[in-house]
Amino acid sequence: MRLVSFLRNGRAGYGVAKDGGIVELGGRLDAPDLRTLLARGMQDEARALSARLAADFPLTEVRLMPVIPEPSKIICVGINYVAHAAEAGRTVGRHPVIFHRFADTLIGAGQPLLRPRVSEQFDYEGELAVVIGKGGRHIAPGDAMSHVAGYTIFNDASVRDWQFHTHQYGMGKNFAASGPLGPWMVTADEIADYRKLELRTYVNGEQVQEGRLDELAFDIPHLIAYVSQALPWNPGDILATGTPSGIGFKRTPPLLLKQGDSVRIEVTQIGELVNPVMDE
Amino acid sequence: MRLVSFLRNGRAGYGVAKDGGIVELGGRLDAPDLRTLLARGMQDEARALSARLAADFPLTEVRLMPVIPEPSKIICVGINYVAHAAEAGRTVGRHPVIFHRFADTLIGAGQPLLRPRVSEQFDYEGELAVVIGKGGRHIAPGDAMSHVAGYTIFNDASVRDWQFHTHQYGMGKNFAASGPLGPWMVTADEIADYRKLELRTYVNGEQVQEGRLDELAFDIPHLIAYVSQALPWNPGDILATGTPSGIGFKRTPPLLLKQGDSVRIEVTQIGELVNPVMDE
Repeated sequence: MRLVSFLRNGRAGYGVAKDGGIVELGGRLDAPDLRTLLARGMQDEARALSARLAADFPLTEVRLMPVIPEPSKIICVGINYVAHAAEAGRTVGRHPVIFHRFADTLIGAGQPLLRPRVSEQFDYEGELAVVIGKGGRHIAPGDAMSHVAGYTIFNDASVRDWQFHTHQYGMGKNFAASGPLGPWMVTADEIADYRKLELRTYVNGEQVQEGRLDELAFDIPHLIAYVSQALPWNPGDILATGTPSGIGFKRTPPLLLKQGDSVRIEVTQIGELVNPVMDE
Repeated sequence: MRLVSFLRNGRAGYGVAKDGGIVELGGRLDAPDLRTLLARGMQDEARALSARLAADFPLTEVRLMPVIPEPSKIICVGINYVAHAAEAGRTVGRHPVIFHRFADTLIGAGQPLLRPRVSEQFDYEGELAVVIGKGGRHIAPGDAMSHVAGYTIFNDASVRDWQFHTHQYGMGKNFAASGPLGPWMVTADEIADYRKLELRTYVNGEQVQEGRLDELAFDIPHLIAYVSQALPWNPGDILATGTPSGIGFKRTPPLLLKQGDSVRIEVTQIGELVNPVMDE
């Protein structure tokens, strides 16, 4: 099942994407938004309802929102592929490198990535993102996968000069309209083994990144467990699992994003996340 | 005017603290919570209403919440006092060191700071926090103070071993119940010059930190302007301005927080933020 959040005629809704359209769930199920649906564990009701209904309208009639428009947390992992650690001049250490994003950096599939006014060093980072279903603290790695509601695609687009203004990354990872999340969330029941997923990023049709999820230095159960020792995971929270090698900033010559570019990230079994680049 | 958010008999409310009690504003003004009051710029209505009413109930009858219970962003500044930079083995650079906290790390005045199960290196950091009133992007330093709704006190309590698990601080700054914010917000009209404010932190009655806000390496207008080049400020967002020297971790011998301790942070013209320490 592919769950989406969208705007249609200026009104926020959510539903199931199928057959090129959307079966709207808002108004038919007792959950005002997708985050609440996950919090209430109503995926089975959503699946049953969408199986017996035809699409209400085509996908082309909506503006896709970030899969979860207002997650309480977006937790990102740095240098989590060994080859990317090497290109960044880092080694993978004993603990995952965690940083944070705020919800107002997110955009939906198809919406413009904004190359900020204050920088010419705007770069892509294709990633698999986990959407948390069941919240919790002190989750054991062996239980962690039961907290995963599904998977989506994330572009952790980064403003490189601001990322290295100081020793803390955060500012370069928190620009407005720099975090496409979507197009939809594929529920966990459809992904038998996330480690077999393959990710590829393309800029203007040319492949620039490739990775397989079994290459993660810290795997998803470990990441969920680690963070839960500090903070609760809440339904709808996002875990972005890190990017493989091939970022633009480290290429020779560098490949930085400019107005008119298009960034496409494909993850097998999930789909593709495409966003044009525009100047702020 | 001292604005507070609270829980009373399990119900969330907000109001004005005066004469040892609270004039409740929720239900009397067209704003369901303090963040919305700031977003609607209704401080004058709140001031007029609270001036002609007596307190509805004593402060002792409520549980204080973080001044803004669910800010969309909590932006923290590292090593922003020169003497603290020196004790941390850093120098102040060209740009402020920014990191982020999530709302679910916040607690109110009087609520227990939880020393986490996974660490014995739990430390205080007394700070002045700014509460944003009017939101905006690309704010010029000269206009920045018009975006300040008021000031409160923050304890950026830090889990030192987790802070240095990797080169990114974030994990050690995002533990549940590690971020007291309060007790109230003093509106900006009452603070003629924030640079004259003085901050002192006490552990079990003994003074451990002292600073004056004119010592900030990056002052409040500069910080507001810098962040706004990347992201919008939203009403109710929190800017924590950094801590002066004297943190427990760098003392000889180290002074780390343990169950039964009490941390009090005083800021002149604002008040004091007191929290007991408990084991998780």
